Amino acid sequence: MSTYLTILGFNSAIPTVNTSPTSQLLEMEERCFLIDCGEGTQVQLRKAKARFSKINHIFISHLHGDHCFGLPGLIASFRLLGRDVPLHVYGPKGIKKMLETIFTITETHRGFEVVYHELNNSESEKIYEDNRVEVYTIPLDHRIYCNGYLFKEKQKDRHLNMQEISKYKEIETCDYHHLKAGKDFELSDGYVLKNEILTTDPALPVSYAFCSDTRYLESVIPIIKNVTVLYHESTFLHDLKEMADYTGHTTALEAARIARQAEVGKLILGHFSNRYGDLTVFTDEARTVFPNTFLPKALEVVKI
Amino acid sequence: MSTYLTILGFNSAIPTVNTSPTSQLLEMEERCFLIDCGEGTQVQLRKAKARFSKINHIFISHLHGDHCFGLPGLIASFRLLGRDVPLHVYGPKGIKKMLETIFTITETHRGFEVVYHELNNSESEKIYEDNRVEVYTIPLDHRIYCNGYLFKEKQKDRHLNMQEISKYKEIETCDYHHLKAGKDFELSDGYVLKNEILTTDPALPVSYAFCSDTRYLESVIPIIKNVTVLYHESTFLHDLKEMADYTGHTTALEAARIARQAEVGKLILGHFSNRYGDLTVFTDEARTVFPNTFLPKALEVVKI
Repeated sequence: MSTYLTILGFNSAIPTVNTSPTSQLLEMEERCFLIDCGEGTQVQLRKAKARFSKINHIFISHLHGDHCFGLPGLIASFRLLGRDVPLHVYGPKGIKKMLETIFTITETHRGFEVVYHELNNSESEKIYEDNRVEVYTIPLDHRIYCNGYLFKEKQKDRHLNMQEISKYKEIETCDYHHLKAGKDFELSDGYVLKNEILTTDPALPVSYAFCSDTRYLESVIPIIKNVTVLYHESTFLHDLKEMADYTGHTTALEAARIARQAEVGKLILGHFSNRYGDLTVFTDEARTVFPNTFLPKALEVVKI
Repeated sequence: MSTYLTILGFNSAIPTVNTSPTSQLLEMEERCFLIDCGEGTQVQLRKAKARFSKINHIFISHLHGDHCFGLPGLIASFRLLGRDVPLHVYGPKGIKKMLETIFTITETHRGFEVVYHELNNSESEKIYEDNRVEVYTIPLDHRIYCNGYLFKEKQKDRHLNMQEISKYKEIETCDYHHLKAGKDFELSDGYVLKNEILTTDPALPVSYAFCSDTRYLESVIPIIKNVTVLYHESTFLHDLKEMADYTGHTTALEAARIARQAEVGKLILGHFSNRYGDLTVFTDEARTVFPNTFLPKALEVVKI
């Protein structure tokens, strides 16, 4: 089960005919996580042929419109599509009041529960965990309270080497979960079969960090250390560093510095100001510091 | 100055890849009126190459999401585009609380005033008037408080016949507005020049009625009598009349009956349920009662 990231939109501020505001769909270990939800996200999800019913967790970085104005419509559509299972919404304190006010006034009667997980911590915290995946906040520095999110696969089970296992009748099906967990097997005569004979290495767990919107912030580096893929906003080029600081954003050069210091596998940039036409200027600048940097493409699916 | 209607979206409920929820742009006597504003309307406005700065009045029929979820994003974009003149928003009571809650929580600081005109009257009322145009509500019968809107050009000035006027030195520029208003001109010798010699007929004033969403409702007929163009929702075909009544909608046949009884010039249908593929079934049904019925096309500009 691989992990895939679909970039639904990566534009800053004003939607245009050809670009959508921030939203991403992360499929990790069969979970479907929606990250940010700018206006028009539900249409982007349709273009990506995403199954709405698989989305049970939505993570909103901050309550600026270009990151959350698609939420009311998406949740209303969930209702019209007959959803009956809970939807978990993670986001800054205030998100519940905003959405519930909208749903009350627009008489959006839901047939399912929306479980709000409101965030106001300034330290990174684990906000989601199941048997395969963990999600942590990445506190950011924007004009308004803002978190990135770190999605981590847990250590995976070792693969059973059935060819070897079948040689030992003493190993029964009920022993498999010990073998998958890396334990050796002791035969009745006291001989110990080493785990590495009976199993093979699993795929390494992958991780994905989403950092939007923020000023250059070195405190994120230990949180996102060695992630497989980092998405980091880069609204401006570095010649507009002052503008970036003033508006609470990062330059492409700074995003690359974060990537290099965190020793991530790959950097994807995004949230570009509308003032730029040809976006390759962002990778040109970032690659001087971190060569493995890429531009997003709308509806592109990135294997992580 | 002709009157043009641009259909920005005419879908019901859930936006799809190729269709947008209800929104229309009416350009009448150089005024730009936005009618309803479903999610994604601002992108449709861009596709229509509409000038955002010309929109000073927005009329919302009712507070269901598919008619208003594009408003927060559009107003946020107005701010980002530097708007500094007031924006008038007409809509059901509750629209102010909803929008202001959103703007407060998302810290959407506006550089311009939003003037709310909240409606809760069950009788038709004049809600806008200037020297050339009047707008009236059309109370409808939906699951939630809902108004259609009637836009009427006022009687236009008569055109000056300069060839005739130039024959009479006594007629001065300051007399023209009397002539345009239809008055005769008395020469100093007492001879009366009839107005129809000095002027020609102006274009007849046109009118446009927008009726969305409603059950079949005969009380709209006197309000929209003889309008040049009527848009009327027809969510269902008449074989689903019970469903239409239950959900507060109209069938194509019923929309045509309204059009015929109101003796309108032209009927445009819309707000079709997603269950229908080929939409010509709607005009097929409606034309049995009112032949001059048409389907909308996205971004089509209709001369009224």
